[in-house]
Amino acid sequence: MSLTLQEANRIAGAAIAHAETLGIGICVAVCDAGGRLLAFQRMDGTTWAAVYGSQGKAAASAAFGRPSGDLTERADHPTFRGIVAADGGRMILGKGAVPVMRDGAVIGACGVGGGTGEEDEDCARAGASCVS
Amino acid sequence: MSLTLQEANRIAGAAIAHAETLGIGICVAVCDAGGRLLAFQRMDGTTWAAVYGSQGKAAASAAFGRPSGDLTERADHPTFRGIVAADGGRMILGKGAVPVMRDGAVIGACGVGGGTGEEDEDCARAGASCVS
Amino acid sequence: MSLTLQEANRIAGAAIAHAETLGIGICVAVCDAGGRLLAFQRMDGTTWAAVYGSQGKAAASAAFGRPSGDLTERADHPTFRGIVAADGGRMILGKGAVPVMRDGAVIGACGVGGGTGEEDEDCARAGASCVS
Amino acid sequence: MSLTLQEANRIAGAAIAHAETLGIGICVAVCDAGGRLLAFQRMDGTTWAAVYGSQGKAAASAAFGRPSGDLTERADHPTFRGIVAADGGRMILGKGAVPVMRDGAVIGACGVGGGTGEEDEDCARAGASCVS
Repeated sequence: MSLTLQEANRIAGAAIAHAETLGIGICVAVCDAGGRLLAFQRMDGTTWAAVYGSQGKAAASAAFGRPSGDLTERADHPTFRGIVAADGGRMILGKGAVPVMRDGAVIGACGVGGGTGEEDEDCARAGASCVS
Repeated sequence: MSLTLQEANRIAGAAIAHAETLGIGICVAVCDAGGRLLAFQRMDGTTWAAVYGSQGKAAASAAFGRPSGDLTERADHPTFRGIVAADGGRMILGKGAVPVMRDGAVIGACGVGGGTGEEDEDCARAGASCVS
Repeated sequence: MSLTLQEANRIAGAAIAHAETLGIGICVAVCDAGGRLLAFQRMDGTTWAAVYGSQGKAAASAAFGRPSGDLTERADHPTFRGIVAADGGRMILGKGAVPVMRDGAVIGACGVGGGTGEEDEDCARAGASCVS
Repeated sequence: MSLTLQEANRIAGAAIAHAETLGIGICVAVCDAGGRLLAFQRMDGTTWAAVYGSQGKAAASAAFGRPSGDLTERADHPTFRGIVAADGGRMILGKGAVPVMRDGAVIGACGVGGGTGEEDEDCARAGASCVS
């Protein structure tokens, strides 16, 4: 059931291909269901802030089983702040990541940073959609 | 006076039974009067973010002797922030947990995560109400 | 591939049954492959220190895919200290937990606290061995 | 002067190829001169503890411009502890990473986790040596 490295690399490649059509540079992080990194790629010239953004958003999508951007409005709510803190402060509840699903279960997530939140999420979806 | 493991499991079972009637997956944490875990159950397919949410809300309910959701509005008040910090950051002042009372005393709490705050609290009440 | 709640409860029950034959009280924590809690039980009268010990050792066993006690000698090595810190300080590299394996893959872990390290690991093995 | 993503992937691929000749599973992290991640790969079945180990060792090698294992003996020295803490606690001064050099300058590092310290460093060297 779990994502293989080959699948993770396919996801990352599809996200990068989409970023190229948008003319932007991105970091893309693919993690497992537990939020632990499987594969990561930083396109040349992409700011290293996106190293953290892409990974934190991927972890949040895996943790909650939904796009990290769906949680942004509630990021300051005590429940969400508390969960993020309890996990060690790694998760980022910002737009740019989606879970990777198989047979109705979360098997990982794809997180992107470097563009706008919209662009990042579009790249993440392009990545995640190539595995199902 | 204190909750037995058998009672804690009865509470968890009743919370899960209620979650099933709502058609949702939950994590349920039952702690003692000191906020320390007695029993925990994660229903299949429930996101692991709820592992932290259910426990943090149960601890808050035990600490303050009231539903954790009753404290959400005051979560940013320095007194509450300070108390949470002083305990190591474990408590979560969000909706979804209730204390377990016996003879007017707090003997523990039941915390739930995985649904909306309302659903979580309903499940927690269903759990707590089967011990009195 | 992942552990179900039913399996996790079977593991916890077998660990407790073994503790009863030893005449000790334990906490038993069963987590998934990512180190996130699935089921937890604290036997009546067991100290709450074991709440943290059982969970931390289970997380370490899941993270490293081996008994947590096999890592105790190296717990002060910079590599192990660094990994524990990077994960948020949750893992405990002490004796008392074993991974749960299926088809050669780590699918979770069983961690026990409350007895001596030897007793805890024996209980954890009794738990883990009933799922394979 | 800086490493390209293509080079980083070549380094990661060479480290994995070496791990395969050793019959072990690894995580390999390639970072830039500033210790920020460029590319990461986790071989199937590799424990997630190595996710943190590989990255922390790569960051240390980039920071100090030498193999991270050369610093293990001094890891408890206040100067090194202080530098690690000042960077947020990410660096790991354990064996398993080497800097990537070009024209006498550090342009990045390759960090590996999953094997013994020796095996990890051998894989890291195999990776780093294919770019010069």
